Amino acid sequence: MTAYKDLSKNELKALKKELTKKFEDVKAKGLKLDMSRGKPSTEQLNLSMGMMDVLTSSSDLVCEEGVDCRNYGVLDGIKEAKQLLADMMEVPKDNIVIFGNSSLNVMYDTVARSMIHGVMGSTPWCKLDKVKFLCPVPGYDRHFAITEHFGIEMINIPMTPTGPDMDMVEELVSTDPAVKGIWCVPKYSNPQGITYSDETVHRFAKLNPAAEDFRIYWDNAYGIHHLYEDKQDYLIEILMECKKEGHPDMVYKFSSTSKISFPGSGIAAIAASDANLKEIREQMKIQTIGHDKLNQLRHARFFKDIHGMVKHMKKHADIMRPKFDTVLASLEKELGGLEIGSWLAPRGGYFISFDSMDGCAKAIVAKAKEAGLVMTNAGATYPYGKDPHDSNIRIAPSYPTLDEIKLAMEVFTLSVKLVSIDKLLAKAE
Amino acid sequence: MTAYKDLSKNELKALKKELTKKFEDVKAKGLKLDMSRGKPSTEQLNLSMGMMDVLTSSSDLVCEEGVDCRNYGVLDGIKEAKQLLADMMEVPKDNIVIFGNSSLNVMYDTVARSMIHGVMGSTPWCKLDKVKFLCPVPGYDRHFAITEHFGIEMINIPMTPTGPDMDMVEELVSTDPAVKGIWCVPKYSNPQGITYSDETVHRFAKLNPAAEDFRIYWDNAYGIHHLYEDKQDYLIEILMECKKEGHPDMVYKFSSTSKISFPGSGIAAIAASDANLKEIREQMKIQTIGHDKLNQLRHARFFKDIHGMVKHMKKHADIMRPKFDTVLASLEKELGGLEIGSWLAPRGGYFISFDSMDGCAKAIVAKAKEAGLVMTNAGATYPYGKDPHDSNIRIAPSYPTLDEIKLAMEVFTLSVKLVSIDKLLAKAE
Repeated sequence: MTAYKDLSKNELKALKKELTKKFEDVKAKGLKLDMSRGKPSTEQLNLSMGMMDVLTSSSDLVCEEGVDCRNYGVLDGIKEAKQLLADMMEVPKDNIVIFGNSSLNVMYDTVARSMIHGVMGSTPWCKLDKVKFLCPVPGYDRHFAITEHFGIEMINIPMTPTGPDMDMVEELVSTDPAVKGIWCVPKYSNPQGITYSDETVHRFAKLNPAAEDFRIYWDNAYGIHHLYEDKQDYLIEILMECKKEGHPDMVYKFSSTSKISFPGSGIAAIAASDANLKEIREQMKIQTIGHDKLNQLRHARFFKDIHGMVKHMKKHADIMRPKFDTVLASLEKELGGLEIGSWLAPRGGYFISFDSMDGCAKAIVAKAKEAGLVMTNAGATYPYGKDPHDSNIRIAPSYPTLDEIKLAMEVFTLSVKLVSIDKLLAKAE
Repeated sequence: MTAYKDLSKNELKALKKELTKKFEDVKAKGLKLDMSRGKPSTEQLNLSMGMMDVLTSSSDLVCEEGVDCRNYGVLDGIKEAKQLLADMMEVPKDNIVIFGNSSLNVMYDTVARSMIHGVMGSTPWCKLDKVKFLCPVPGYDRHFAITEHFGIEMINIPMTPTGPDMDMVEELVSTDPAVKGIWCVPKYSNPQGITYSDETVHRFAKLNPAAEDFRIYWDNAYGIHHLYEDKQDYLIEILMECKKEGHPDMVYKFSSTSKISFPGSGIAAIAASDANLKEIREQMKIQTIGHDKLNQLRHARFFKDIHGMVKHMKKHADIMRPKFDTVLASLEKELGGLEIGSWLAPRGGYFISFDSMDGCAKAIVAKAKEAGLVMTNAGATYPYGKDPHDSNIRIAPSYPTLDEIKLAMEVFTLSVKLVSIDKLLAKAE
C-alpha cells in the first residue's frame, strides 16, 4: 500500500475517478444503514427475554427485607438489587443507591442538585459566576449535553492511550476553584474503547482539588461489557482508591443495566461515599416515594447474582465480537497503510473511534449519508459539537447485522478515501 | 348527646375517669395499627395481578408506532400509553408526556427546571430574591416538602367546601409577581376529599397573574378514584378552561396510575399546552433517553382503554368504600354532637380529614400513638409542618383491614375525647 500523501496529483485524480465509480454503484443500491448510536441489536435483546417470565401473577413479590414490591416503600433500592448492582460496580452494597431506568437521569439529577443546593454544604453552583467541567475528548455527547444545558463551561482534555491527559487534569483541578467536575467513561471509553491505566486511576484518586465541591463523574457504563474471553481490560476501583488517598467523597460512580438487560427498562445506580449518599438520599426523599421495585426484583431474580450477570455478558460478547471484528478488518483492509486515518481496536464497550485527516470528518459523514449510511454527527464527540480538528468519527456497530455492517463499511471506507483525496488535491493546489 | 362544652367540670372529670379506664384497656392489647399514609391495601394490589402476566417472553413487544419497547427510542411515551393516560386525564393525547413511575418526581422536576432555567424564557427562579407558592391548607405534605426544599416561601390559603379561598388566590396572584405557583389537588383533595366547584375552576382559569411564569400545579391524583357508583364528584377540565380564557400555558396537570395499578410501579404523566410541553421535551431529552416503555406497554395492554380502567376502579371502590364508611360511622357514633371535632364525608380519594378543637391535634396523635395507633403527624397537612390552629388530622383508612380500622377508630375517638376533656378542663381553671 502506498500512502495517499505519496501519490502524485495525477495518480490521486485517477484514483478518485475509479473510487467515484464504485461509490456511485453503492449509492445506486439505495441503502438505508445506521451506525450512529450504541443501540443493542434485536439478537442481544432476545438474550434477556427470560426476564419477561421471571415475575408472574403466581410469584412471591416480597423482597428480602419483607416488603411487598407492589406497594410504596423502600426509598433507595431493595436489598437483592443493591447486592447485584454493588457487585457489578465493585463496591460494598451499603455504598449504593438504586434509581429508575436511566443512569443518564441520575447524572443529570446530580448536576441539577449541585446547581440548586450545592454539594455537601458548598455554595449552590447557580449562585456562582462561573462553573467549569473538564471533558476528556473525544467523549460522550450526552454528558456534554448535560453540562451545556446547565450553562457549565466545558474544557477539552485530550485523551491518551492510558486515559485523559493527567498533567492537564491535575493542573486545572488543583488551581482553578471553578472546576467542579470531570466527565469520565473510565472503561472501554465512549468512543475510543480506552481503559484508564492503573497510574491514571491512582492520579485521579490523588487529586487535590482547589474546589471542595469538585467531584469525579465516573460513568462506568461498560464495566463488564467485554468483547473477548482472553483479552480483557482491568480498571482499578475508584471509590476505594479515593478512600485510601483520604478523599472518600471525591467521586460519584454511575452505572446501569441498560446494555445488559433492556435499554430503557433496566435499573440504574449511583455508588458513592456514605456522606455523599446521605445528601443524595435527603434530596431523593423529596423527589420521589421510591423507584420501580418490581423491576428491581425482576432483575435480581433473573440474573440471580453477579456470576449470572457475567455469564449473560458472554452471550452479548458472542454477538458483538464478530461485528467489531468486521469493522476492524474492513478498516485494516481498505485503509491500512494509506495514512488517511487511524483507529483503535477496543477490547469492549460499544464503539470504534476513527480519526480522519484533519478537516475531513464532517465531509466524510456527509459523504456516507449520500449513500444511505447514517453515522454519529461529526463533532458530536466534543463539547458544543465542535471538534477542533474535525477529525473524529464514532462508529457504532452494535445494531446492524453483519451483512449490513459489511455494506456500511464499504460506504464508509469509500467516503474516507474520496474525501481524503479531495483534501490532498486541495492542498496540492 | 350533650356537647362537652356544656358539661360541668365535675361531669368532665367523671367522664375522663371512665374514658381513661377504657383507654388503658385498649392500650393493654398492645396494638400495632397504622393509618398514616395513603397506601393501597394488599387486596387492592391483588386487583392488578393480571398485569404481571400481560407481557411474557412470547409477547409481541412492539408498540403501535412500530418501535421495539425493549430498546432505546420514543422520548415522551408510546402512543397507546399516551392515549390511555390522556383519556384518564381528560385531555387530547398530543397534550401529554409520559414519564417514569412517579408523578411526585415529575412535579419535583418541574419546579427544579423553573429554578434553574426559568419558565418559557423567564428569569430562572434561583436568580430571584424571592419566590412564593400558594398552598391551600390543609394539603399534601409532599407538595409542601418540594417547595420548602427549594427555598420557596409558602403562603397558606384556607380551603373552603368549594376549594381554595379564591378571593385570596386572585388577590395574591394578580398583585404579587413573586407568586409563581399554587399547589392544587382539585378532586377528592388530600386530605379533605373536597372537589373544586365549577365556579372555583372558572376563577382559576380567569386568573390574571402578575408573574408571566405563574403556573397552576394541578395534581389530579384522584381523578377517577370514586367511592360510590351513585354519588360522584365532577371536576371541570382545567386545560381547556384555561385555553378558553386565553391562558393556555397557565397550568401543569399531573397524574399517575400509582393508586390504580401498583404504587411505585405505575406510570406518571404531565398534561399541558403545546408551548409548555415543547419546553419540557427540550429539557427531557437532555435528562434521559426515555422512560420504561415495557411498563407503559404493560399498562396499555392490561387496561386496554379508559373503559377498562374505569371498570378496574370500581373494584378498588368496592374495597375502599366499607373502610371509609366504617371510619365515618365511628366518628358519627362516638363523636357526633359532642362538638369536639368536625369532619367531611368525601366521595372519593384516600383520606378523611378531621378537625379537633384548636390546640388538640398534636396531643391527640400522641395519645393515639400511646395505644399503638400511628396517624399522620399533626401539622403535616400544613407548610413547614405548622398547623396554626393545631387542629387538623389526616385519617388514611386504605391500608388496614376493616377489623383493624374498627380498633383504630376506637383508639382514635377515645384519644380525641380525652384530649378534648383535658383542654376544656384547662380552660375552666
